[in-house]
Amino acid sequence: MRLALDAAADAAIRGEVPVGAVIVRDGAVIATAANAPRALADPTAHAEMLAIRAAAAALGRERLDDCDLWVTLEPCAMCAGAIAHARIARLYYGAADPKGGAVEHGPRFFGQPTCHHRPEVYPGIGERDAADMLRGFFRDRRG
Amino acid sequence: MRLALDAAADAAIRGEVPVGAVIVRDGAVIATAANAPRALADPTAHAEMLAIRAAAAALGRERLDDCDLWVTLEPCAMCAGAIAHARIARLYYGAADPKGGAVEHGPRFFGQPTCHHRPEVYPGIGERDAADMLRGFFRDRRG
Repeated sequence: MRLALDAAADAAIRGEVPVGAVIVRDGAVIATAANAPRALADPTAHAEMLAIRAAAAALGRERLDDCDLWVTLEPCAMCAGAIAHARIARLYYGAADPKGGAVEHGPRFFGQPTCHHRPEVYPGIGERDAADMLRGFFRDRRG
Repeated sequence: MRLALDAAADAAIRGEVPVGAVIVRDGAVIATAANAPRALADPTAHAEMLAIRAAAAALGRERLDDCDLWVTLEPCAMCAGAIAHARIARLYYGAADPKGGAVEHGPRFFGQPTCHHRPEVYPGIGERDAADMLRGFFRDRRG
């Protein structure tokens, strides 16, 4: 999660909402990504999406069933859907997101009958650091 | 929708689940895409995602609030989330997808309080052709 928090901090420096993600397989990091919809002019460029795409490209396959995803914020519906499509084994996330999250808020996607793969979910990992970074980012933007 | 159905037919020829998508702005097609997770080794490569990313790249911005999306199948949670992030104005889709759809099934994402943009939604456009193509594809794969 330290690597994901570092990626989130990098995103903040670039003016992106600070969220970072890392994909690990057999104890090795195979993808690291930061939120980048502005820089890439791509509304789908959340950290989780970029990490999943990079990991799938690195492995040359669309299923990541032997991979774990670490992300600093509760995934949204788009990212939760991608996590299910990718067959991610375990999801570790930091801060909860009552406004846009889709794991423990809103659609609670992994509990829906239309969700075809449910990862093991471990919330609250590095929550304080992740939440502090997000709060600081939005406070500075308002200031 | 004819263009989206043509893209779906192309996907089937390549062994991908036949779903096609088109993005229209001011009456002009600015992106056309077919489902391609296998070919691209990318679990996020649904037709809608590829079309949204292509349209955003073409316009150089992450918001597509003056664009309409036509897609042959009811979007899943990932794609519905991306449609909301992209601020798509109108969504036209063909066949309903009781197993994986997230518009009129499962999470019914656009009705969730955590959904921050709801497009106008027009289901059932070209539904018969889209559904016939999907049925034919899965029948042939089982045969």
